[in-house]
This record gives sequence, structure tokens and C-alpha cells, in this order.
Amino acid sequence: MSEYNIRPAEEGDCEEILRLRQELAVYNKTPGLELTAEKLRKDGFGEQKYFECLVVEDTKATASQDKPVLWGYALYFYVYSTWSGRVIFLEDLFLSEEHRGRGIGSKLFHEVAQIGLAQDCQRMKWEVYAWNKPSIDFYKKRGGYNVTESTELDIYQMNRAELEQLVKLHWPSN
Amino acid sequence: MSEYNIRPAEEGDCEEILRLRQELAVYNKTPGLELTAEKLRKDGFGEQKYFECLVVEDTKATASQDKPVLWGYALYFYVYSTWSGRVIFLEDLFLSEEHRGRGIGSKLFHEVAQIGLAQDCQRMKWEVYAWNKPSIDFYKKRGGYNVTESTELDIYQMNRAELEQLVKLHWPSN
Repeated sequence: MSEYNIRPAEEGDCEEILRLRQELAVYNKTPGLELTAEKLRKDGFGEQKYFECLVVEDTKATASQDKPVLWGYALYFYVYSTWSGRVIFLEDLFLSEEHRGRGIGSKLFHEVAQIGLAQDCQRMKWEVYAWNKPSIDFYKKRGGYNVTESTELDIYQMNRAELEQLVKLHWPSN
Repeated sequence: MSEYNIRPAEEGDCEEILRLRQELAVYNKTPGLELTAEKLRKDGFGEQKYFECLVVEDTKATASQDKPVLWGYALYFYVYSTWSGRVIFLEDLFLSEEHRGRGIGSKLFHEVAQIGLAQDCQRMKWEVYAWNKPSIDFYKKRGGYNVTESTELDIYQMNRAELEQLVKLHWPSN
């Protein structure tokens, strides 16, 4: 039996995915995560599926504890580019610190790339904090490049409160 | 009869959406667009729908020519954030130059915001070239902010050729 197994996430993995996402929030220095296991179950395994996910399962611990024990995960979905067509978007790629440096994150990244190719995607896309040198090195080594740097393309957003404010201003009768 | 009408795109709009997307490519100084009307029909109105779209229709010209004549469009889809949940992503917002400055683009933007709210999105997101001052002013005035600037979050990508190269390197037997 191999030490670990990369497989598609199941509903029963959501508690562990949440735990890993919390670790990622600490790594990213972004406290205050609102995600819950319940939300992951609903959004990933409910009637409408908003994402797909691969997980790295600790084969031995899972067998002995009779519930999934995960080392890492890759959460992704599909977006669309009017330039190139279908695109696979890698929302999170995360491996717990103690399991890094053994090629597992690399395998996970490759599996997502393979899924993208199989799904006829013309591109794989993701976002990285500029301070995150280890991840940037990881991605660049594998062929990723910084689009913000090469074409000065910036990300913009508005949160729900701002959207509500905008709509209220425009249609005060609503 | 109002001069124009904002409505959801239909399959018969794809030639006009393509024409506008070509205008956008000129505006963006990005020649070599690979998109075709056939691709838009397949990806937006086929068995699997990868995007949704609102169009601004010239009411009079459409009636007299008996086929849609469009001034602009907003193409969007849904993505997922493990931080905030469901997000509406605005891929393109475009209005032909001669129809700008009369509040039509603003209405289009507001309609997408409203759709996002109705679809329970926690955020609206899009991308803008740093040189595109008129669009940046437009978005900032309406509550949008530059996430790349505020959190140093950069966009990374790999195109299909690079994905194929990566997968080949990793699994030479494939």
C-alpha cells in the first residue's frame, strides 16, 4: 500500500479540507476565514456543484482512524476566456508543511494540469501573492508565468456590501 | 419604443457579440483573437454552457434589419472562492465607442451586479489592464477596487502548450 493516495474529494472529506484551508489562511496571513465544512458540502457536493477538488489522503491514518486524514488538496473549477475558450482555474493548491518537499504538491499540480487538458482547456490559471516566493518558484519551475507582470493585468473586485450599495444608488426604488 | 434594450443574449446574437469582441481586442491592443461565432454558439448555447451574457440591442436597427444589431455586451460566469463563496466573474464589459458616455455601460454593469446579488454571490470580480484609465475610473467610481494593488495578488497562467509540456515531462510514458 502506497503511503498516500491522490483522489477526487468526497463529501466526507469536507471537515479535513476545511482544516487544511484554515492552515492555508494562516500561511497567507489572512485571518477571519468564513468558510465552513457545511458550506463546502453544499457548494461542492450539493445539487449545484461550484467546484471540484482533488485530495491527498494519508492511506495508513485513514485506514486506522476509519475516516479520511488529508495532507493536502487542490480545489479547481472552470472559467471561460473570450480569448482562448475554456480555462481551468486553480483556486487553492495546498499541502501541509510537514509533507512538503517530497514531490507530492508537484504530483497534485500535474494532476490538475492533466484534468484541464482532458477537459479541453486552453489554459490553466491561478492567483499568487507577490510575497509568496516559495510558491512562485514552484509555479515558474513548472511553466507558470506572471500575467500581471507581463501584461499589467490587475484583479478588481467589489464585495457584496459594495454591490448592494451600487444597486441601491442606481435604483433607489428597489 | 426605447432606443435600446438590455436583455440576455440569444444564440442569434453570436455574430454581433463576436464583432464587438473584435472591437474590444482592438481597444485592448491584443490582435490575433481566435474566438469565432461558432465557438460562442457552442460554448454559450450548446449542451454545456460555459458563460452567460447580456447584450445592448439597438431597438430600431434590429427591427428594420430583422436581425439583432448590438451596441455592447457583458459576458460573465460564476467562480468560487474558498474565502467568500460564490462569486460572479465579469469577463468582458464592452460598449462600442459611439455609444459611450450616455450611461449605457453603467446600466449594463449594474445589471450584472444585480444578477450577482440575486444569485447569492458574495463578490463580483473582473480584470483590467493597468493602462486602461477610462475603465479604471469607471469601475472605481462604482465601488470597484484593485486587489492586485491592495493585496499584491498576481494572476498566473500556463497555456495549453505549456500544460502539455509539463504533463509530458512528468509522465514520459504517456
